[in-house]
Amino acid sequence: MTPILTKSDAADLVVAARVRRGLSWREIADEIRAPHVWTTAALLGQHPMTPEQARQVCDLLGLDGTVAESLQQQPSRGSDPARMTDPTVYRFVEALSVYGPALKELIHEEFGDGIMSAINFRVDVSRRPDPDGDRVVVTFDGKFLDYKW
Amino acid sequence: MTPILTKSDAADLVVAARVRRGLSWREIADEIRAPHVWTTAALLGQHPMTPEQARQVCDLLGLDGTVAESLQQQPSRGSDPARMTDPTVYRFVEALSVYGPALKELIHEEFGDGIMSAINFRVDVSRRPDPDGDRVVVTFDGKFLDYKW
Amino acid sequence: MTPILTKSDAADLVVAARVRRGLSWREIADEIRAPHVWTTAALLGQHPMTPEQARQVCDLLGLDGTVAESLQQQPSRGSDPARMTDPTVYRFVEALSVYGPALKELIHEEFGDGIMSAINFRVDVSRRPDPDGDRVVVTFDGKFLDYKW
Amino acid sequence: MTPILTKSDAADLVVAARVRRGLSWREIADEIRAPHVWTTAALLGQHPMTPEQARQVCDLLGLDGTVAESLQQQPSRGSDPARMTDPTVYRFVEALSVYGPALKELIHEEFGDGIMSAINFRVDVSRRPDPDGDRVVVTFDGKFLDYKW
Amino acid sequence: MTPILTKSDAADLVVAARVRRGLSWREIADEIRAPHVWTTAALLGQHPMTPEQARQVCDLLGLDGTVAESLQQQPSRGSDPARMTDPTVYRFVEALSVYGPALKELIHEEFGDGIMSAINFRVDVSRRPDPDGDRVVVTFDGKFLDYKW
Amino acid sequence: MTPILTKSDAADLVVAARVRRGLSWREIADEIRAPHVWTTAALLGQHPMTPEQARQVCDLLGLDGTVAESLQQQPSRGSDPARMTDPTVYRFVEALSVYGPALKELIHEEFGDGIMSAINFRVDVSRRPDPDGDRVVVTFDGKFLDYKW
Amino acid sequence: MTPILTKSDAADLVVAARVRRGLSWREIADEIRAPHVWTTAALLGQHPMTPEQARQVCDLLGLDGTVAESLQQQPSRGSDPARMTDPTVYRFVEALSVYGPALKELIHEEFGDGIMSAINFRVDVSRRPDPDGDRVVVTFDGKFLDYKW
Amino acid sequence: MTPILTKSDAADLVVAARVRRGLSWREIADEIRAPHVWTTAALLGQHPMTPEQARQVCDLLGLDGTVAESLQQQPSRGSDPARMTDPTVYRFVEALSVYGPALKELIHEEFGDGIMSAINFRVDVSRRPDPDGDRVVVTFDGKFLDYKW
Amino acid sequence: MTPILTKSDAADLVVAARVRRGLSWREIADEIRAPHVWTTAALLGQHPMTPEQARQVCDLLGLDGTVAESLQQQPSRGSDPARMTDPTVYRFVEALSVYGPALKELIHEEFGDGIMSAINFRVDVSRRPDPDGDRVVVTFDGKFLDYKW
Amino acid sequence: MTPILTKSDAADLVVAARVRRGLSWREIADEIRAPHVWTTAALLGQHPMTPEQARQVCDLLGLDGTVAESLQQQPSRGSDPARMTDPTVYRFVEALSVYGPALKELIHEEFGDGIMSAINFRVDVSRRPDPDGDRVVVTFDGKFLDYKW
Repeated sequence: MTPILTKSDAADLVVAARVRRGLSWREIADEIRAPHVWTTAALLGQHPMTPEQARQVCDLLGLDGTVAESLQQQPSRGSDPARMTDPTVYRFVEALSVYGPALKELIHEEFGDGIMSAINFRVDVSRRPDPDGDRVVVTFDGKFLDYKW
Repeated sequence: MTPILTKSDAADLVVAARVRRGLSWREIADEIRAPHVWTTAALLGQHPMTPEQARQVCDLLGLDGTVAESLQQQPSRGSDPARMTDPTVYRFVEALSVYGPALKELIHEEFGDGIMSAINFRVDVSRRPDPDGDRVVVTFDGKFLDYKW
Repeated sequence: MTPILTKSDAADLVVAARVRRGLSWREIADEIRAPHVWTTAALLGQHPMTPEQARQVCDLLGLDGTVAESLQQQPSRGSDPARMTDPTVYRFVEALSVYGPALKELIHEEFGDGIMSAINFRVDVSRRPDPDGDRVVVTFDGKFLDYKW
Repeated sequence: MTPILTKSDAADLVVAARVRRGLSWREIADEIRAPHVWTTAALLGQHPMTPEQARQVCDLLGLDGTVAESLQQQPSRGSDPARMTDPTVYRFVEALSVYGPALKELIHEEFGDGIMSAINFRVDVSRRPDPDGDRVVVTFDGKFLDYKW
Repeated sequence: MTPILTKSDAADLVVAARVRRGLSWREIADEIRAPHVWTTAALLGQHPMTPEQARQVCDLLGLDGTVAESLQQQPSRGSDPARMTDPTVYRFVEALSVYGPALKELIHEEFGDGIMSAINFRVDVSRRPDPDGDRVVVTFDGKFLDYKW
Repeated sequence: MTPILTKSDAADLVVAARVRRGLSWREIADEIRAPHVWTTAALLGQHPMTPEQARQVCDLLGLDGTVAESLQQQPSRGSDPARMTDPTVYRFVEALSVYGPALKELIHEEFGDGIMSAINFRVDVSRRPDPDGDRVVVTFDGKFLDYKW
Repeated sequence: MTPILTKSDAADLVVAARVRRGLSWREIADEIRAPHVWTTAALLGQHPMTPEQARQVCDLLGLDGTVAESLQQQPSRGSDPARMTDPTVYRFVEALSVYGPALKELIHEEFGDGIMSAINFRVDVSRRPDPDGDRVVVTFDGKFLDYKW
Repeated sequence: MTPILTKSDAADLVVAARVRRGLSWREIADEIRAPHVWTTAALLGQHPMTPEQARQVCDLLGLDGTVAESLQQQPSRGSDPARMTDPTVYRFVEALSVYGPALKELIHEEFGDGIMSAINFRVDVSRRPDPDGDRVVVTFDGKFLDYKW
Repeated sequence: MTPILTKSDAADLVVAARVRRGLSWREIADEIRAPHVWTTAALLGQHPMTPEQARQVCDLLGLDGTVAESLQQQPSRGSDPARMTDPTVYRFVEALSVYGPALKELIHEEFGDGIMSAINFRVDVSRRPDPDGDRVVVTFDGKFLDYKW
Repeated sequence: MTPILTKSDAADLVVAARVRRGLSWREIADEIRAPHVWTTAALLGQHPMTPEQARQVCDLLGLDGTVAESLQQQPSRGSDPARMTDPTVYRFVEALSVYGPALKELIHEEFGDGIMSAINFRVDVSRRPDPDGDRVVVTFDGKFLDYKW
């Protein structure tokens, strides 16, 4: 029976090949003409790719067909909790712990009773130059969904 | 001995008074000339207010001096984990679980080894009109800090 | 300062008054012309009521204005984990643990990559007569939302 | 000694073979003339199959006898908690957290003190067309069991 | 508004009154002509009593109508996890941890794929004289329910 | 150095061999003239077997000497918590959660302050015919041990 | 209805009264002619006292009858996990984590398959003078119980 | 690169070799002239051995140089929590839960504010004959350390 | 019976009185001629004070004798886990998670097998001016204790 | 595809090679002219090394290019919780639990509302001779960051 490659194994192979080939995530995203946060998340195992996208990435990185097959699989989404305490990721967790209830209040004030969709949703990360030190700007942009019976 | 009001008790009194007086969080923020996410978070117990800010808010909401005193206290920041599973808050948690590792990769790619500060940091929430349904746009904006020994 | 009644306290008062007055949840729901699962959930603290609905319920149950005020508050949704192990509730938890991954596979097969909304969503519970013992039929009915960047 | 294949390993092989052969879960269910949710759950390791069912599935998917043997084993049922936070599965968890206590109240109101069986039980998932977007309809249908000493 | 007594508060009052009146659990059970394990569990908050049973118990123990009302409420069943580590209770937990999987194998061998019901179920505890020290004999007796779609 | 087989690996090999040879747990227990719950638990890794018992079981099941050696090892007893949520096992956990405190009260009432031993202890499982559906009867029988300084 | 005092509340009152009266735990133990570890544990809520012991302790400490009644109640034994991380208690927890498996091996080597009883059991704590600093000596002394079916 | 053997792997090999050679832990301890609890703990991976001790143990048990190298490694001390619920180990955990706060009180009463060291520390286990059944006696003996700024 | 004030309640009263009187922690420490970290920790409930120290602090802050009595009580040390996620405290937790294993390696390299005492121990916090921003310097200084049987 | 070595695997190989070659962490740090705590942490997988540093370390320790490649990877920082209970590491955890809230108070008193950075941060560990026993001195030195919107 043909061997199976988990999405997590595929992600490890992509990460290593990317470094060895000296390619940035943005270059890979440009190659498949997709947003760079989406592409990075997909290659780390959080979104399924189309066969065409998977083939292009594997060609670019010199990875074989089992990786391409794995990249097309439907993922079980979410991250190992251990990853969430890495300091770069944890600062977002901390920000939610401090500002989450305030965001909830202001979403209800502006839109009424409902949520920001995490499905009809996009994220962007960019650099904003600042004389006191450049800033990381991350934008969460999701459709408002109101509680509707 | 004078009674003590916890910041959590003070927050409950602010929330109730705000509704009874028919005031929005933005109106309160405007009154003290402070950003609306910061003001909401502060009133929910996540930031200390200046004596002047605390007095103004309590005047506006008809709350007494023990509330004003509590609003000036240094908080122990963070939210009860039970609050993080409220659906409006949880969508942010879910988004981090799906996109957190990708954000980490792209921060390292753009800035090098380091983090987005959650201290030299601001958050904004706004509405973006969209024909397919208006969108909640939340921006995290923090100074990049590089690992520096 | 006026006393505050948490939504959990209000729910306890509603439950007790309902029994004392000999009213069913369905009768209360009929009184406010709302679906019975929605009404029950709202009175247990999971949805905000309109001022009119809150007033009608409190009139019917003989509860005062602080309860009516509490019923209109925006909730922080979700249940105490201790409640989820009550046998009547746990059977649903168990069913999800056994069938959840299969439901995920079939939703993806039928609709593509996405989710059933829990916001644009309704639940119904009914009795289905059966010679081998009547059956509890619970229907979850939510809008499909596809992952859309 | 003959090698042993866990039900989880067998499930991974079934999932991969299904995609490679271009077969849907419904087509596999039809082949063995069994309900599609039951069949999917069984192939993911939650129900034992009969020798005949296991043989038919393995013939269809080109899997060998160790897989067929594994599919007949009595399972230790339940899912890895990590799977329950996948967004497609989590929406059901969230719905239970919001509506579970209300379902309990209404089951007691309609049937008395008891539970919906999760053993004498079936689940169905279907698509309901809707002009505002098609809907996922999941039905839980279990025999009522009353507390009986 | 009339005060409310939780089932846990009612249980504490029953336990204290029982000791003060010098009554055994069996005597209380005999008074209401119900099995002694059932009666004890009900008075500790795990089963609702009929109005007649509740009245009889409160008369016997000298407790008032708010206790009787509480004893009739539908419980949210289950015990505080802290109670499960009391040594007298923990020995049962330990026995399940050691023998649970064996019981599962033997139930499947004798009855097929299914469970012992914990709803159509009774428990008994008795003393069995033994020259090497009397023995506690606890019998779990539940209807077999087979997995039936 | 000779390879080592964990008791868990040995259990998996026993379970598979038992099915392949078409033997029941009772037949294996009869072969070694030991109680069937004890034998099943021992083969699942919860009790050490004598060299003679281990040899007999391995002869019967066609397993080699490394399995026999493993079956004689002193175990570290207890089950993986994931196994305790399998529905067949969970019903016992639930019964303890509902009736554990009542059993404690009645043990103290009958025997005084102490416990049922889980060491000087036996379990039995049997079928009791019943016109309304046969019943699973599980008996826990342990020596009473009183708190004795 | 007479007020109820939990064993934890009673313990707090005993601790405070002991300090105010300038009495040591050993003096209290001597008064009731009981071992000092047993007496201390009983007064902290881990063992029921006889009416005579409870009366003597309350007379000595100037506490009233509700405390005496509470001291006679059957406890639900065990400590709040938060107490186990106090450094004085934690060193015992750490010692078990380091030496627990070795103690198990040596108990099995010396006595066979079984346990040290924690019920037919006593503990003592004493000071052993030592030129390099006096030593705390704690002795656990429990009857060996062998696994006996 | 030379293969690496974890201390846990080395412990498994020692345990198996000890049984195969028919040696007791005490005999091994005598061979290296070290206390038997210390030796057992060290071989289970909780203390580093000297090169001479490691060589002697491996000669005695017929184990090779990679085991000897592993036995000399500095350990990361502590046990897998799953091991702590084995009944033989758990009785010590339970005893601490029942008597830990009493030991704390008595250490403070006898020595002042401080702890029993778990580092300048020894443990012994022995058998004490008793007509009612022999007893396991475990002694914890650690230097008192007072809180000293 | 005289009311009892927990050390946590006393801490809250000290914190509030300190702010109302406009006193710094260092001023309070100077008053009792004790180190400022020790004094702050003691007033937050982590160390017992002498009667003289407790009296001086209460005189300075205008607190009564029940506070003074509470400050002298032997504490059960340690912090509520919720406090450890406050960002100011969490950075220390994070630093340990990143550097803890390296500190362990270097302590073993420099001192041999053992630990830094947390009992014979002092902490200091100070400000170190730096042109790029002043620095918080925290020093942990504990006696080395070697593993000694 | 080229094999991948996790940072954890690389750390194990470094630790073993260091012992075999008889090199101290300080000697390795001197070789690459980097601080010794930083170097140790980096080799244990907490910081990425430059290609030059990685090459030098691997030459010194006789490790191959896959280790050098792994040492340069961007880490997901943080330690396995099981490592945090090792006694040498745990004393730091305990010190934070006892002194963390006091450090927070004093940082706020000295610097205002903010934190000690764990990113613009260095740690040092050294030995301080003391007639009563040498002392481990660990210094945490991080830039103060004030909450700045």
